[in-house]
Amino acid sequence: MIKHPAFIVEPWSVRECHLHTDVLAQTESVFALSNGHIGLRGNLDEGEPFGLPGTYLNSFYELRPLPYAEAGYGYPESGQTVVNVTNGKLIRLLVDDEPFDVRYGTLHSHERVLDMRAGTLIRKACWSSPTGARVRVTSTRLVSFTHRAVAAIRYEVEPVDQPLNVVVQSELVANETVPPPTADPRAAAALEAPLVLEENVAARNNVCVMVHSTRASRLRVAAGMRHEIEGPDGTRVECDGGGNVSRVTIATRLAPGERLRLDKFFAYGWSAKRSRPAMHDQVVAALAAARLTGWDGLCAEQRAFLDDFWAGADVEVEGDAEVQQAVRFGLFHLLQAGARLERRPIAGKGLTGSGYDGHAFWDTESFVLPVMTYTYPRAAADALMWRESILPLAQARAEQLGLRGAAFPWRTINGEECSGYWPAGTAAFHVNADIAAAVTRYVDATEDTGFERDVGLPLLVATARLWCALGHHDADGRYRIDGVTGPDEYSAVADNNVFTNLMAQRNLRAAAETAVRHLDRAELLGVTLEEAAMWRDCAAAIFLPYDERLGVHEQSEGFTGHAVWDFANTTPEQYPLLLHFPYFDLYRKQVVKQADLVLAMHLCGEAFTPEQKARNFAYYEALTVRDSSLSACTQAVLAAEVGQLDLAYAYLGEAALMDLRDLEHNTRDGVHMASLAGAWIALVNGFGGMRAHDGRLCFAPRLPQGITRLTFRVRYRGRLARVDVAPDGTTYRLLHGSPLTVSHHGEELTIGAQPQARRNAPPPFPDLPVRQPPGREPTPRRPGDLSRGLVVPAEQPAEEV
Amino acid sequence: MIKHPAFIVEPWSVRECHLHTDVLAQTESVFALSNGHIGLRGNLDEGEPFGLPGTYLNSFYELRPLPYAEAGYGYPESGQTVVNVTNGKLIRLLVDDEPFDVRYGTLHSHERVLDMRAGTLIRKACWSSPTGARVRVTSTRLVSFTHRAVAAIRYEVEPVDQPLNVVVQSELVANETVPPPTADPRAAAALEAPLVLEENVAARNNVCVMVHSTRASRLRVAAGMRHEIEGPDGTRVECDGGGNVSRVTIATRLAPGERLRLDKFFAYGWSAKRSRPAMHDQVVAALAAARLTGWDGLCAEQRAFLDDFWAGADVEVEGDAEVQQAVRFGLFHLLQAGARLERRPIAGKGLTGSGYDGHAFWDTESFVLPVMTYTYPRAAADALMWRESILPLAQARAEQLGLRGAAFPWRTINGEECSGYWPAGTAAFHVNADIAAAVTRYVDATEDTGFERDVGLPLLVATARLWCALGHHDADGRYRIDGVTGPDEYSAVADNNVFTNLMAQRNLRAAAETAVRHLDRAELLGVTLEEAAMWRDCAAAIFLPYDERLGVHEQSEGFTGHAVWDFANTTPEQYPLLLHFPYFDLYRKQVVKQADLVLAMHLCGEAFTPEQKARNFAYYEALTVRDSSLSACTQAVLAAEVGQLDLAYAYLGEAALMDLRDLEHNTRDGVHMASLAGAWIALVNGFGGMRAHDGRLCFAPRLPQGITRLTFRVRYRGRLARVDVAPDGTTYRLLHGSPLTVSHHGEELTIGAQPQARRNAPPPFPDLPVRQPPGREPTPRRPGDLSRGLVVPAEQPAEEV
Repeated sequence: MIKHPAFIVEPWSVRECHLHTDVLAQTESVFALSNGHIGLRGNLDEGEPFGLPGTYLNSFYELRPLPYAEAGYGYPESGQTVVNVTNGKLIRLLVDDEPFDVRYGTLHSHERVLDMRAGTLIRKACWSSPTGARVRVTSTRLVSFTHRAVAAIRYEVEPVDQPLNVVVQSELVANETVPPPTADPRAAAALEAPLVLEENVAARNNVCVMVHSTRASRLRVAAGMRHEIEGPDGTRVECDGGGNVSRVTIATRLAPGERLRLDKFFAYGWSAKRSRPAMHDQVVAALAAARLTGWDGLCAEQRAFLDDFWAGADVEVEGDAEVQQAVRFGLFHLLQAGARLERRPIAGKGLTGSGYDGHAFWDTESFVLPVMTYTYPRAAADALMWRESILPLAQARAEQLGLRGAAFPWRTINGEECSGYWPAGTAAFHVNADIAAAVTRYVDATEDTGFERDVGLPLLVATARLWCALGHHDADGRYRIDGVTGPDEYSAVADNNVFTNLMAQRNLRAAAETAVRHLDRAELLGVTLEEAAMWRDCAAAIFLPYDERLGVHEQSEGFTGHAVWDFANTTPEQYPLLLHFPYFDLYRKQVVKQADLVLAMHLCGEAFTPEQKARNFAYYEALTVRDSSLSACTQAVLAAEVGQLDLAYAYLGEAALMDLRDLEHNTRDGVHMASLAGAWIALVNGFGGMRAHDGRLCFAPRLPQGITRLTFRVRYRGRLARVDVAPDGTTYRLLHGSPLTVSHHGEELTIGAQPQARRNAPPPFPDLPVRQPPGREPTPRRPGDLSRGLVVPAEQPAEEV
Repeated sequence: MIKHPAFIVEPWSVRECHLHTDVLAQTESVFALSNGHIGLRGNLDEGEPFGLPGTYLNSFYELRPLPYAEAGYGYPESGQTVVNVTNGKLIRLLVDDEPFDVRYGTLHSHERVLDMRAGTLIRKACWSSPTGARVRVTSTRLVSFTHRAVAAIRYEVEPVDQPLNVVVQSELVANETVPPPTADPRAAAALEAPLVLEENVAARNNVCVMVHSTRASRLRVAAGMRHEIEGPDGTRVECDGGGNVSRVTIATRLAPGERLRLDKFFAYGWSAKRSRPAMHDQVVAALAAARLTGWDGLCAEQRAFLDDFWAGADVEVEGDAEVQQAVRFGLFHLLQAGARLERRPIAGKGLTGSGYDGHAFWDTESFVLPVMTYTYPRAAADALMWRESILPLAQARAEQLGLRGAAFPWRTINGEECSGYWPAGTAAFHVNADIAAAVTRYVDATEDTGFERDVGLPLLVATARLWCALGHHDADGRYRIDGVTGPDEYSAVADNNVFTNLMAQRNLRAAAETAVRHLDRAELLGVTLEEAAMWRDCAAAIFLPYDERLGVHEQSEGFTGHAVWDFANTTPEQYPLLLHFPYFDLYRKQVVKQADLVLAMHLCGEAFTPEQKARNFAYYEALTVRDSSLSACTQAVLAAEVGQLDLAYAYLGEAALMDLRDLEHNTRDGVHMASLAGAWIALVNGFGGMRAHDGRLCFAPRLPQGITRLTFRVRYRGRLARVDVAPDGTTYRLLHGSPLTVSHHGEELTIGAQPQARRNAPPPFPDLPVRQPPGREPTPRRPGDLSRGLVVPAEQPAEEV
């Protein structure tokens, strides 16, 4: 009963040594390639078998009606769903008239490697057809970071021991059949044949272009491909197609030692406005540029781009090879999600799957951007510029809801609210403060005053106005925000959620301060000094419910008076609770899906004393079931802060391995961007103790047993700092930029190019006993465990090789 | 710009003197006939024009999927919708080859009269065809109170001034086309052709029978008709049909002074179990019985049944003819809804329309049964026996929700939950306590110990267990019920709703007391003395939130800390608020849709001091917008109790005239049973000050300016009491039964067959200033107003006559 780990643990790559068709959908997500504009799931070149075929373009969606058993005012009438666009990665192979299909014949070996330095997915297969014809197939796939519209595949076929007739068909296919959706509400709605053909032409030079549009959202997509082919004399190439297929067929006869090589360049463009001819020409031009660069050129640019990224972002972990791999895997996917955004959102699953319908949530601002801000800040700016671009929609939504300012959607692609369940959607107004916090964080980290003025200020002003519309003063002069939903989705529509109130407080203050810094711009937005004063007053009076008897903050007012969930009588199969218990029961009890008050203690740490943090952490730890992937990393950060280092380490493991181990059983729908960010957060904010605000970069490094060294890089205000944490001390050095004063366990020190070492402070707090709900304890982290990577169920027979 | 009142005010009838086709749907509801088993809307005999064609059988429904934009655990997957069954009331007329249709030719006169003593709807029309052929048509329609399965129509045609060829077609038609549904969530889902034909035969004796079944709910309905025809010699009768139509055609030639008379008997039966032949035979037998009784016999039985009802239920109001008519109209419709229930529910609209999909709600137990209990108690018993019959479904629902005991559905036909929005459905658990209160009330009023043991005890035990599952003790030992929704639908999912907690308290106590009275039966239900003790303990510790600063009870915990709704900036067109503002905003503010705490003060009055009642009433009065028809009568009761007699009178008017004036603009979908009950409640509980519990019948009579005398009858513990309230004093008399001790303004007196007079006490409370939200003041009641009845919009041209 050996459990097969799907992936080999290596520092710079994710390697699958055998093909496990039972976890195909999961590996397609893990091996997805993207540049933030184009996303290709790691589907096999030949298209079948597949878990979920997927080719996505950022913000290319179709509308679908949102039905309600009982309608209500302000409910969104239509939702948006990411579209599986024209598949350009299809390359089919016939060997002596037998189609290459791993389900038939004999697969002697099969390896896939995601190379995080090269930015490529390499596949090597050796296969015999049912009639015994044996070939070696190698493909290398990339989605270019430097050519935003372009992806490419180098595909090579070699006979092993006998001459073979080989036919390769390189295709563009639209409206692929996708499997029916599962009942899991976190999966996507299925769209059947969402693309309407507008054009399918094979032009000269073997360039094929197809243009489609969507029915309801009226978006147009163009896809094109062209090829460089290298084969023995007599290799014949034909181009045909029709309907939703476009095909280049290459036929040749290969002797052992000979090889057919195909470099396939494919390009995409989409627009809500541009004409069919314009879109056609756009992809043809992208293909011309790609061909000019050539396969080798694309690969070289890809590596250079990544070298630059890793130089400023890499995290090195000694003593735990799994976490080392996982944190790089996370950073790589974050970069893929954000590299070439250009004012488009980062979805919860990036462009790696259709989970959550391809929607972007607050996760982006609260988990993904805090990493990007200090490692690849351009992506943070891009994502926030997208928020600024949808401000008119958010303002219209606020007006529809009878509010002022802007009410950003809980989930969206195009900026309009897609949430069909308001208590966990519309009511979760904290998304607006999360956006404001991301603005403040980005501006603090970059000192990008142009951004602050043009993008940040409008966002801060609009969100501050929302909080003024949402709150009111009570008879005691406290500023209350009633009836909203915080991050914990097992509570909803409660009064004075501490997280929301603290984040709103910071939102209001930031708006006032930023408006005063850009008075001329603020005036154009109608901001008066009176309004700014009101923001400060509301912020100062914000109400934070606190239970004196228990000595803890209440997640929301009245929370600690509720019955505690009956954890003792909840069985392991009943998690996640939301699939087994009604919201009614979850909402009225003390049970926490994901860090809420604990997240407030991370993001607004200065509002709590160390003693409050320790007491609150212990209290909420006993209630938190982590039915969300957005929880473990935050718990890691606070566990580290209160000195529970082993616990923090366990949570780090959970956050880091969410997708490589498919811990929540839905990696099939795409990887979890926020949890991938969580590995960095747990390491850097957790064990590095990094916090930054108001120009101050603070560290409180402390390592758990098992991690022998942690080295990370942080970009801050034009500097690139390298922090090297050892069990007993930490060494700071600037790799770039002028000297910077930072804080180490509260001690100020100015760091420059010369390394400066300091001893780490011991855990400062008396150890409160901390426990989790029974059965929900995180798996203790024991580096060197044999099991690693995505686990293939043992009851499945091992793949024949 | 004269506004046309649709109805003439008469003490015992509702008379429409002209046909107003623009309010046809409303008059169809007002003129609906029913016996609680069969319901016929007041559609014109000839079927067209119509507002909404409707023929209903109690509990005959079809299933439809309930869609959700975002699914959740425990959401009902299918809803039930009342079916418009085979229409048996169709009688078409051709006069010299021209169809009688009021939209063509000339309608010289048209009158419809609902006779509340005869139990009939009489229609008289005089019409000339486009070619000038003039006829007089008279039809009298009844749904028999004594023959549960039978309805009948006497239809007469006479030429006025010249001999005419007359053809009458009497039909059964299934799957009539119904108009598309409106966007109003309170209307019904439209079912297209819900009936599948199983049989359509014309047997001997001109008996036609059609049997249909529904696709999903698998219910079978049989409809049959037979005729007695009286016409001149040469009158020919044919019977034909096919598909979903069955037709008897009568052709004759009438000279002036001659008449064609048709007595149409039609009968219905439905079953989930019985076979097609059994159902066929069942309606044939019902028709045979009806024919044996004959038209005159049916009419005589109908009148005798009503004479008996009115003798025990009539309310006489002097000084306000409109209210006099309205209270009788209300009682008449209540009787129609409940007379022949036989363990079926009373729906929110009875069987008068498809509003609310034909569902039954808590309205029945909280508004309708409190009237029936003291006027026609058999209907209350029947409705509660229906609840007992669906107890297994309610227990299964509780189990599904992770609770114990029974969780009765918020809205249903067959006993399964149909609510597609849980915060205003599932979370409104008070429905369970409302059922328990109805049991307690019925048993108190009737001393029906058999019912108490066999029906009441299982209901009380199952609901008490629910409250034990829903509540918990807090650190102060208070028993809390968190996260539930009270009657006010502008708040939801709140902690410790006072109404719910008080009703739960009474539910728990009643269960304990009843269990002790029937220990043997209780044991069979698994009740131990320990469990009963726990019920008492929970009841004793129940928490009632009270705002010390304001000196008022909080509707729910924290309610008075919320922002007050911005009434000043809410325009008249923005009511009802739920159609113009999101639930999000309504829930988080102090705004009350309908009496909630005020209803608690009515139903659990002994939990409040007189001073609390006055203060609470004033506080909530300023927040209550009455966007529900379930509010005015309760406000009338409390206004009367706190001495605001003019205000009580205004609310009486609103409750009483809800349907006769279409005050909420949805009488088209059926009349409002609870509001119709509200006229009685406002008069008897309000101005009569009647309360009853624990064998004590109390009165505190007091009349407003305008009502010069109020006389009502109350059935209580085998007695029939007559209470005659004059401005200065009240006279009590038993019409039936042994002497009874009652209370008059706190003074005990024993009443018997001899009248006993007492002076009325003056209003006992200091007048607190009471105001309503601006623009939401009730219309002051000025008896003798010219406007009366359903008002036809003045912009419509008067109907040509």
